[in-house]
Amino acid sequence: MIIDIGYLATCAEGGLQSDIHPIRDAAVAFEDGRIVWVGAMDALPDRYRVLRQTSAHGKTLIPGLVDCHTHLAFGGWRADEFGMRIEGKGYLDIAAAGGGIRKTMRQTREADSEALLSHCQTYLKKYLALGVTAVECKTGYGLSKEAELKILRVYQKLRLEGPIDIVSTLLAAHIIPSDENCNRDCYIKMIVEELIPQVAKEQLAEFNDVFVEEGAYTYDEAVNILEAGLGFGLLPKLHVDQLSDGRGGELAARMGAISADHLEFTSQAGIEAMAKASVTGVCLPFASLYLNQPPMKARSFIDAGVEVAVATDFNPGSAPSQDLPLALMLACTMSRMTPAEALKGATLIAAKAIRRGAEYGSIEIGKRANFAELDAPDIDHWLYHFQPESCVRTWIDGDVVFTRP
Amino acid sequence: MIIDIGYLATCAEGGLQSDIHPIRDAAVAFEDGRIVWVGAMDALPDRYRVLRQTSAHGKTLIPGLVDCHTHLAFGGWRADEFGMRIEGKGYLDIAAAGGGIRKTMRQTREADSEALLSHCQTYLKKYLALGVTAVECKTGYGLSKEAELKILRVYQKLRLEGPIDIVSTLLAAHIIPSDENCNRDCYIKMIVEELIPQVAKEQLAEFNDVFVEEGAYTYDEAVNILEAGLGFGLLPKLHVDQLSDGRGGELAARMGAISADHLEFTSQAGIEAMAKASVTGVCLPFASLYLNQPPMKARSFIDAGVEVAVATDFNPGSAPSQDLPLALMLACTMSRMTPAEALKGATLIAAKAIRRGAEYGSIEIGKRANFAELDAPDIDHWLYHFQPESCVRTWIDGDVVFTRP
Repeated sequence: MIIDIGYLATCAEGGLQSDIHPIRDAAVAFEDGRIVWVGAMDALPDRYRVLRQTSAHGKTLIPGLVDCHTHLAFGGWRADEFGMRIEGKGYLDIAAAGGGIRKTMRQTREADSEALLSHCQTYLKKYLALGVTAVECKTGYGLSKEAELKILRVYQKLRLEGPIDIVSTLLAAHIIPSDENCNRDCYIKMIVEELIPQVAKEQLAEFNDVFVEEGAYTYDEAVNILEAGLGFGLLPKLHVDQLSDGRGGELAARMGAISADHLEFTSQAGIEAMAKASVTGVCLPFASLYLNQPPMKARSFIDAGVEVAVATDFNPGSAPSQDLPLALMLACTMSRMTPAEALKGATLIAAKAIRRGAEYGSIEIGKRANFAELDAPDIDHWLYHFQPESCVRTWIDGDVVFTRP
Repeated sequence: MIIDIGYLATCAEGGLQSDIHPIRDAAVAFEDGRIVWVGAMDALPDRYRVLRQTSAHGKTLIPGLVDCHTHLAFGGWRADEFGMRIEGKGYLDIAAAGGGIRKTMRQTREADSEALLSHCQTYLKKYLALGVTAVECKTGYGLSKEAELKILRVYQKLRLEGPIDIVSTLLAAHIIPSDENCNRDCYIKMIVEELIPQVAKEQLAEFNDVFVEEGAYTYDEAVNILEAGLGFGLLPKLHVDQLSDGRGGELAARMGAISADHLEFTSQAGIEAMAKASVTGVCLPFASLYLNQPPMKARSFIDAGVEVAVATDFNPGSAPSQDLPLALMLACTMSRMTPAEALKGATLIAAKAIRRGAEYGSIEIGKRANFAELDAPDIDHWLYHFQPESCVRTWIDGDVVFTRP
């Protein structure tokens, strides 16, 4: 049980995205890794007073953060392209010059499972120090049957290892690999006829994602690939409207996607289609910042009734940071979300974007006891007075998994 | 002596801003707090091998970072205004509604010296964990003779305490305090005739700064106040062109300012005037980000021959973060500076912007042994793969003042 919580943001279901349902001077009780009671300290029932107590010393407690969009497993970094982009080279220019995603593809294919596993373990450990307790992990740098499966099996191992919850997404349709012996149509055929069935058979992923963009996949190809996934129980996700309006909002609504991510160029019609179909929008501020693109207009989505999650997009090209609290601060400053909206976007709404809304994402009875303790008096202050070491303790399933030294 | 430095950025004088003069597999020797030798490990003279050695384990070493623009001493925070700005309220709207700088003025006046001292000590300690070894500190929230002197005396105490070098700037001309018993002209007269002479007499500041903007001071008032300061040996600094083009570049050139800061709206003529007069430009990315303003076009300044420093502008309103490495990453992504340019902007060029270029800011023989050790293979990687806890050790005058637990 955690007592003396100065400000507890429950992020409970209900109300607007800005309703984080806070409780001041609060306590939360948990047993066997699940929350059994939450409320104001002075209303704590006697029967919970026997539980072992730890004090939050008046600090803030939030649900464990959920990073619902990452590309965690990759080989190599691309720091050299950071300078190229500053000098004005575009995302597609760099890709055309043999850099970009293709470079990471080559290095990811060359990396063996042990190397990828060790890489992921390094960053998962750092996630704990940021208060992150669940991470969605996409493939998309293997881009062959063997290499995509290799990545998914690494994620499978990480899921079994714990303590961070790993949720896997197949993103074989990230770019066209352009291998000599397999052209565009051949590669898509392989995804549909071989990879998706194999992923389903081994239960390696829950979601099937497609990057729809000039230089990547078309609207119609996405429909084809996502329908194939649905046939095997893989729910659609989408990378859309990042560099241009590709009717991504409409596509996500048509396919019943659980989320549509990026959305920098989505039209008002696309936004309304998403709202009507209850598709969660995922705001990825690092990608906009690093690619020098206009940010997602999160306000237009929220005002239209779309729930907006916030995530890092952690990857070695367009979003080389896993600092989710910083992404939240940028969602406020760049995409004009309020601190409360940003927090709910990286807790309950993020959990729902990876189909874990019933398990975690809010501090409510029955949910997993995943929390982050913040050295801040409240949420406005946390994201306004941005400090790099604000997370002081992290719990998963009731166990302390990080304590700041 | 530090050995086994994988990548040492000397940031030595000479060349373009992008020339950080790196040395791979390097060592740096220091005695009595001063650097006595720097170079490649295999060229280390025998006579330094007797010095006590510490290994950098192949990591990166940079000069101690210099935050050359902060408002360190203030009373209270203004997290509530963060949400107001997200909802579209402007800087001047909030000020007009009794919030903004005036709110901080009231709380700073109410705070006694001990409270301000303790506040500053808290944040100076956090600076060490960021690799920052020198901080310029402005007044500007007292806005009366007594309160401005109170702040400068706090800075004086901090300077004597060490270990971070504190450099003080009088910014009595921040806004017009609008006190009942002293109008605009009365306040300016007090600055010129009473405050500046007293500050000079007690040797409380080296620089005299004016905020030129609608709602603050005019071009002509700035000339008057800065000339008064020059008469007492206080060198001009300027807050200019932040919200509109106020001919700030031209003014800085005319007054021979040691730096002109903000510069979001400076014209090409202003940039050229600054280049001709060798005025350093100071880029403050947090203020642009938090106020949702276009960033300073640092590239135009650098291309015109202006040296550009990067600083936090740490204050409770428009820039409520002291995370200088994050400001550097934002200078790259928002203001299109290369990582090397950003680093030199927060070391040698920042030191020159506070008249400390001969003392520190680069790793050169004779300078103070101030360093930060980074968990990164080089500078491009450091600012590209942004990690909140990248600084692992900090030295001032040859002593380790921070070690990451």
